[in-house]
Amino acid sequence: MSHDFATALAATASAVNQRLDELIPPTTGPEGRVVEAMRYAVLDGGKRFRPFLICAGADMLGAAPESALRTAAAVEMIHCYSLIHDDLPAMDNDDLRRGRPTVHKHWDEATAILAGDALLTLAFEVLAAKDTSPNADIRTALIAGLAKASGAAGMVGGQMIDLAALNANLDVAGLTHLQALKTGALIAFSASAAAVLKNDDAAQVALHAYGLDVGLAFQVTDDILDVEGSSGQIGKTPGKDKAAGKPTFVSQLGLGGAKMMARSLLERAVGHLDIFGHQAGLLHQAAVFVLERKS
Amino acid sequence: MSHDFATALAATASAVNQRLDELIPPTTGPEGRVVEAMRYAVLDGGKRFRPFLICAGADMLGAAPESALRTAAAVEMIHCYSLIHDDLPAMDNDDLRRGRPTVHKHWDEATAILAGDALLTLAFEVLAAKDTSPNADIRTALIAGLAKASGAAGMVGGQMIDLAALNANLDVAGLTHLQALKTGALIAFSASAAAVLKNDDAAQVALHAYGLDVGLAFQVTDDILDVEGSSGQIGKTPGKDKAAGKPTFVSQLGLGGAKMMARSLLERAVGHLDIFGHQAGLLHQAAVFVLERKS
Repeated sequence: MSHDFATALAATASAVNQRLDELIPPTTGPEGRVVEAMRYAVLDGGKRFRPFLICAGADMLGAAPESALRTAAAVEMIHCYSLIHDDLPAMDNDDLRRGRPTVHKHWDEATAILAGDALLTLAFEVLAAKDTSPNADIRTALIAGLAKASGAAGMVGGQMIDLAALNANLDVAGLTHLQALKTGALIAFSASAAAVLKNDDAAQVALHAYGLDVGLAFQVTDDILDVEGSSGQIGKTPGKDKAAGKPTFVSQLGLGGAKMMARSLLERAVGHLDIFGHQAGLLHQAAVFVLERKS
Repeated sequence: MSHDFATALAATASAVNQRLDELIPPTTGPEGRVVEAMRYAVLDGGKRFRPFLICAGADMLGAAPESALRTAAAVEMIHCYSLIHDDLPAMDNDDLRRGRPTVHKHWDEATAILAGDALLTLAFEVLAAKDTSPNADIRTALIAGLAKASGAAGMVGGQMIDLAALNANLDVAGLTHLQALKTGALIAFSASAAAVLKNDDAAQVALHAYGLDVGLAFQVTDDILDVEGSSGQIGKTPGKDKAAGKPTFVSQLGLGGAKMMARSLLERAVGHLDIFGHQAGLLHQAAVFVLERKS
């Protein structure tokens, strides 16, 4: 990855970590246990790719950095709550996340369920506060957009399809629908959040379309890495999807077909950035970064 | 209970049921399973006591009925999500809720977790929409208030204390803190929501205090019913708390002491309504209704 992209990615991760640390202070009361679990889940790092999209978009459109950071913190709360709940025994039953015990292994299942619930709730409390934007119409637009991307018509709906074994016969169109909901919606919200902050409808349409394509490309490269990658590259055991008998873009299109799909999605994603000219450099590089993960 | 109170309670329940039915339409896509579970959980009735407080407050203060109903629907989504998650095997492990299988028994645990998550998310989406109030500052105030009442400093924190066996040695002050978080915060939000809709700070302070007292009185009478009541009266098996060895207001104060506490809480609750004069008739009767449950 290019030097300025790597620098910007690391700077965003550092800034959003600090904001999350401030927004979820440890609590001394007997309810402090759930707050500790929230902090454990949300402060464990990760690439912070969604915050990067938000902050790079804000940089490009001239939105206030503090507004972008708080929006990024809210999105990470949603992303991390979904990981806590997805890791539960009743869902994907994962014991490890980024090399550490998952929340329900480190604490217990009840604490994991509650920590997820509290993070989901806090995301909206953060967006509702005046510090996120002095304009209440913008705050409600962020809340409506994040809720839609996260709920039954977005991330939760996608996880439902993924779990309900309804995917046993999914073709490429079905897999695309699943991924658009499960991961695409939240990535598209992140990519277009700065346009919401600037109340710029044209930019929002373009960046949302960019985000959906980047999100889908991300999943297609995940499927490719599941076949070709090392565990270090993908952060989990390769071959897991194949062992579970799940249809993937690779199983449906072959390795060559999946690679071609990823490449053409990223071409289309980058095309949506044309209206921003050279200002979109970082978002252009973010798309390349997604593709490079598999090489 | 008095005739006009009973009529108003039934009318609110009917109106909020209809609004919930409209706000969660069945979905035909493969993600429809989670939507069916959401509808199953949220449309199963109940007294709709929190919606009653919201709508009676709106009636008293002259807030728009549609704003109150949408706020009531959002609060019921939060209340019902918490019941779904609390019923899970990792939490209270209940198979029945209001005489029907709980969501995880009717569907499965994963669907129950996701349906709860989606209801929690939808509550904020409903409040963020212009139909709830044309004034975005009011919408964000509702969202901030509901999030605070529902999260780690409210309902979720209370459930954490209740579950974490940290209550083994709770005295009356500790039980009061637990209940203020677990149920009091959401009831107080409901009681004061109409004042948020009218942007009336003095009314909000009074109604929030009224709601906290009513909520605590509700829990104290629950503890009394757990000893004295029939299963028909309390909707669950009597003696469950005692069998679980949990401290209750009855175990800490004796039956007579608990009854005295409930009565004085309701006197104090009703005292907070003095500033509204005879306009507060329905809220006055709501407090009496809470006390009458144990007689």
